[in-house]
Amino acid sequence: MTETVHSWADHGHLATYTTKSGSFATLRVYPHGLVLFNLQNRDELKENESVQQILNEVEEKMKEILHNSITQVKRLPAIVRGAEVDRYWPTADGRLVEYDIDEIVYSKDSPYQNIKILHSKQFGNILILNGDVNLAESDIAYTHAITGSGKEDYCGKEVLILGGGDGGILYELVKLKPKMVTMVEIDQMVIDGCRKHMRKTCGDVLDNLKGDCYEILVEDCVPVLKMYAKEGRMFDYVINDLTAVPISTSPEEDSTWEFLRLILDLCMKVLKQDGKYFTQGNCVNLTEALTLYEEQLRMLYCPVEFSKEIVCVPSYMELWVFYTIWKKSRS
Amino acid sequence: MTETVHSWADHGHLATYTTKSGSFATLRVYPHGLVLFNLQNRDELKENESVQQILNEVEEKMKEILHNSITQVKRLPAIVRGAEVDRYWPTADGRLVEYDIDEIVYSKDSPYQNIKILHSKQFGNILILNGDVNLAESDIAYTHAITGSGKEDYCGKEVLILGGGDGGILYELVKLKPKMVTMVEIDQMVIDGCRKHMRKTCGDVLDNLKGDCYEILVEDCVPVLKMYAKEGRMFDYVINDLTAVPISTSPEEDSTWEFLRLILDLCMKVLKQDGKYFTQGNCVNLTEALTLYEEQLRMLYCPVEFSKEIVCVPSYMELWVFYTIWKKSRS
Repeated sequence: MTETVHSWADHGHLATYTTKSGSFATLRVYPHGLVLFNLQNRDELKENESVQQILNEVEEKMKEILHNSITQVKRLPAIVRGAEVDRYWPTADGRLVEYDIDEIVYSKDSPYQNIKILHSKQFGNILILNGDVNLAESDIAYTHAITGSGKEDYCGKEVLILGGGDGGILYELVKLKPKMVTMVEIDQMVIDGCRKHMRKTCGDVLDNLKGDCYEILVEDCVPVLKMYAKEGRMFDYVINDLTAVPISTSPEEDSTWEFLRLILDLCMKVLKQDGKYFTQGNCVNLTEALTLYEEQLRMLYCPVEFSKEIVCVPSYMELWVFYTIWKKSRS
Repeated sequence: MTETVHSWADHGHLATYTTKSGSFATLRVYPHGLVLFNLQNRDELKENESVQQILNEVEEKMKEILHNSITQVKRLPAIVRGAEVDRYWPTADGRLVEYDIDEIVYSKDSPYQNIKILHSKQFGNILILNGDVNLAESDIAYTHAITGSGKEDYCGKEVLILGGGDGGILYELVKLKPKMVTMVEIDQMVIDGCRKHMRKTCGDVLDNLKGDCYEILVEDCVPVLKMYAKEGRMFDYVINDLTAVPISTSPEEDSTWEFLRLILDLCMKVLKQDGKYFTQGNCVNLTEALTLYEEQLRMLYCPVEFSKEIVCVPSYMELWVFYTIWKKSRS
């Protein structure tokens, strides 16, 4: 090992070590007693024995040099970078989490977004849109929550789904004998990917764009909503399953919040007076974003009320807030 | 910034940069095209603007130098090391996950183990024993699963809990009007910490070691089980909530598996013929450990059958297997 040492007057020392095989390590000693050791191994094996052995030896050596005065030792699992299969998909609140992903099942850029379906050993296939974990085959809890947590009677009802290209909501709803479910999804490639690789989520419901009690429109939901509003077509349930920042072919509004409000307003226009609107909100930790969302609800053309529920969606690795919104009664 | 460059004949280059304020960066260029940039900032602010700005500038510069031929860029959230509050508690299957921990509520070494109770913004207080996430206040799903997922009638029944020092199981069971619940927990300090800081989990059940229908014995469960077996005391339900590698004052067996089997055998001796034994198994990904556990079940003194359930425990960030075990009917 070759060693280079840099010393600061007031900030301690940095030693850099390189090996002949292309690995390197840095040992940073801070004046207040913190020592950070990084080992960057070019090997693709994540936790190979030689790495653990080097770390053990460094730890032993440090204990020896410091006469067992070390109060705390923490070794983090290796981070694998530059691998074909990326296992790191941070949470909505920005935390680093490593998934047990072992295979890229699908990876394509559609005209609207980057679509990935990755296989997780425990969660099954996971749909990731523009880097955000959307839904895994394990996540029936998501579908359950965004359809009203089993407390609704969909039998004979008219339902509108915005987004929902993974087919999860549609698949669960058609089992409940609705009169008609209309789903408006902008991205044919999401439907294609999920039809093939998320069958535990969508069953056979994406095999055809039309069924006995459902229809899938591969369109931007904004003009469709405008048309329905103009025609006076009304729904018992509107389920907004669009991505966090909805994709549109013609964003007319200045900010994301205005765009979200435009969609909300249009949804309220096509929702029956005693109808319900369900949507996913955000991770429970992003309290500011949740508050901003709730402020939008006070700015709609008609007065609404809402309730929220906190749900554990397995593949999210963070608790998620779901909203139920309804028109305030006229009395 | 000061720069030091190391070049290998066949393995590319490593540049090390240091700043006057004690920060440093490494830029490793691999021959196959992978470039890894690490920035180690001595600042305690996790995601301060200047760090993001430096990363933006490096990214821009790289794009410029490489004439926009970069196919993929990935920036990971900063890892905070050496902080008073440690946010990294790897999963049972060894993955790196960052928790939203913002406070150390309790941290002590008992005669048996290191006990930590840390506050998570979303999960509430989390009990961590010897570095393993045991239970958070959000984890009623754990208690629900290890008591039979709501399918049992505990009314008038005799129940034995092994471990369970957080009080979660006991608190839920006493609501169900059992005849008597006996809990055997070795570590008084776990009880003390949880009584004070996990009240959403244990309610008031740990305030006294005896209640109308329960009793807590602060003892090693092995001699207690042996005594019950000798006395012929039998239970309708035995719930094993011991840590993955159970702690005992007198381990008599050679291996962990033998020790687990000793406890299992003793539990079967105090379980009524039509009784049920519940326990948590392991994370669903550790298939080898699960198989080994199931092999132990075939080696007990009496024939048993079992079923398992996969449950999402919010604070675990991985799916968990729970077992129900019962004595094979004599017919």
